[in-house]
Amino acid sequence: MSREDPWTQRPSVNRQITLASRPVGAPRKADFKLVESPLPVAGDGELLCRTIHLSIDPYMRGRMNDSPSYAEAIQLGNVMVGESISVVMQSSSELFPVGSYIRAAGGWQDYFTCRIEDAVPILHPDDVNAESLQKLSMYLGMLGMPGLTAYVGLLDIGKPVAAETVVVSAATGAVGSVVGQLAKLQGCRVVGIAGSGRKCEYAINTLGLDDCVNHHSDRFTHDLAAACPDGVDVYFESVGGKVFEALLPLLNIGARIPLCGGIAYYNLTALPKGGDKIPILMRTLLVKRILVQGFIITDHEHRRDDFSRDMLNWLDAGKLEFKEDFSDGLAHAPAALFDILAGNNFGKKIVRVGRPDADSPVSP
Amino acid sequence: MSREDPWTQRPSVNRQITLASRPVGAPRKADFKLVESPLPVAGDGELLCRTIHLSIDPYMRGRMNDSPSYAEAIQLGNVMVGESISVVMQSSSELFPVGSYIRAAGGWQDYFTCRIEDAVPILHPDDVNAESLQKLSMYLGMLGMPGLTAYVGLLDIGKPVAAETVVVSAATGAVGSVVGQLAKLQGCRVVGIAGSGRKCEYAINTLGLDDCVNHHSDRFTHDLAAACPDGVDVYFESVGGKVFEALLPLLNIGARIPLCGGIAYYNLTALPKGGDKIPILMRTLLVKRILVQGFIITDHEHRRDDFSRDMLNWLDAGKLEFKEDFSDGLAHAPAALFDILAGNNFGKKIVRVGRPDADSPVSP
Repeated sequence: MSREDPWTQRPSVNRQITLASRPVGAPRKADFKLVESPLPVAGDGELLCRTIHLSIDPYMRGRMNDSPSYAEAIQLGNVMVGESISVVMQSSSELFPVGSYIRAAGGWQDYFTCRIEDAVPILHPDDVNAESLQKLSMYLGMLGMPGLTAYVGLLDIGKPVAAETVVVSAATGAVGSVVGQLAKLQGCRVVGIAGSGRKCEYAINTLGLDDCVNHHSDRFTHDLAAACPDGVDVYFESVGGKVFEALLPLLNIGARIPLCGGIAYYNLTALPKGGDKIPILMRTLLVKRILVQGFIITDHEHRRDDFSRDMLNWLDAGKLEFKEDFSDGLAHAPAALFDILAGNNFGKKIVRVGRPDADSPVSP
Repeated sequence: MSREDPWTQRPSVNRQITLASRPVGAPRKADFKLVESPLPVAGDGELLCRTIHLSIDPYMRGRMNDSPSYAEAIQLGNVMVGESISVVMQSSSELFPVGSYIRAAGGWQDYFTCRIEDAVPILHPDDVNAESLQKLSMYLGMLGMPGLTAYVGLLDIGKPVAAETVVVSAATGAVGSVVGQLAKLQGCRVVGIAGSGRKCEYAINTLGLDDCVNHHSDRFTHDLAAACPDGVDVYFESVGGKVFEALLPLLNIGARIPLCGGIAYYNLTALPKGGDKIPILMRTLLVKRILVQGFIITDHEHRRDDFSRDMLNWLDAGKLEFKEDFSDGLAHAPAALFDILAGNNFGKKIVRVGRPDADSPVSP
């Protein structure tokens, strides 16, 4: 790997980042290993693909553990998993001619093979131009899994009604920024929670939220209550921890909590000290008749068509903003994950692994 | 109050049990006071009623606190609240002729007045006979609020499907015993949790559950897992605490938790020691896509007609059993509440306050 150009992909070497050890608490650089392998060979019904954009998402932390979760754990020595946008280099499928751009579970590597039925077409070679190449990464963010997570969680579970108050954690992140804007489109008062004054300004000025509270402030609990004078009807939960605790007393009767993550818990190595707060939580859920619904977006593929139609309409109408936070070079993928888990990203985290033009580097 | 016959009601004295002090932890006898007052006078549009059966329910513990809850706190010196079956002694309403039996929020006292619109007709004077008088108390249990709680929580929130596993806590109690039998009628495998071997035998042999586990056993966690070889799809939650903790790891993907109470928490004066388990709970809800829905039965009056029709059909078909646990005499109402909170009751707890025949004692 060239130090000069971290993007450089070589035509005959497949760089891969594997899981070297299972993290205890926050993952460290030593938990990952960069290895070089020969290019994989596409079998019958498979595509050979070159990675362009790799999505970095909080759920990846869970896959590094060997405790059972909703998806299988990554085995030690195996390539880190992840969705990516890639270009097809070899294909026997008319649906995916060479030069097609697809979305697939490509993982943290330059090249991979993928069964045709697991590839989602993003861009046909006939439609390739500078503008369409520029938009490729949106299919990992606003038009991809994070966008669908926001859409299903907010609309199908949160069911916000105009004039209700919606609070969204990680408000400038890949999921949260879509949640906030969709809630505004539903006519709600929307309050964001984010990790810096700069993020809060962005949430208000660019995303159009009514208010945004910095959870690193000493006055966070007070500020959050002040931002929600009529209480909270929908809380889109993806962080947990002290943010959830501050939110709990503000919930209104009949509130809904779509639950898609708990970043504050992912690196825990022991239970938080102090007493068990489950009684407080359960009492609140009971007394206020609150719904909590955990959800995993892969269960909701039946909503993908509605989602794509609605999102493209809103995008065309100029009603949606989306911020991307790029890291350049596969080798920076571990650091990108550290950033996500610490809240140091600003917008959807994407690692640019390879150049988007179909002919670069030389095809193998 | 006569020591010889704890039921004795006097025609011109209204015994009332009031809240003398707010309990810290488990309520004690000194938190209540028995006072004697003149009979209340029914105003326009009001009925004067004599209490026959007083329902004792866990929610009453919450009303003794002054912290905000779904219903107003009882003020110090005021009569304890509660639903009762009573007979109408004075009425200007054709709907409720004298000698009618009604259900109303009569409270812990011999006599009370009640607005006509707050009274629910149970038995018309023309239909009074030994058998119908015998059944009056069912309108506080299986055909009353506990039955409706079971019906709405299980069918509308739990949505059990044939062959799924349903677990019900407090399985021989007023709510739980109905939940278990309704789940059996839906074709489910039903596992009860109860507080003694005798209760478990009753749950299996009389209520017809597939299995029942004693939560006082040292092997409770093991026994519960063994009773649920296919995991748990619906957990009807009314107790919380260690029962909930043992249940949590057994929940299947897509499980539903109707939440109507948390007896284990009601008398807590401090958070349970040993670290905050909210991260474990939230992780489980997320990974397994679980729904938790708190509910308060007074929000679901629109289901009362369906409930009454279905329950009477099942009762007529001999498909429902119901056990009542009577205490005799208003003075024993506090002890009856202590029993409920400690799980020392066996079946629906009812205090028989007055004789059911309409002419006893002499009308004032």
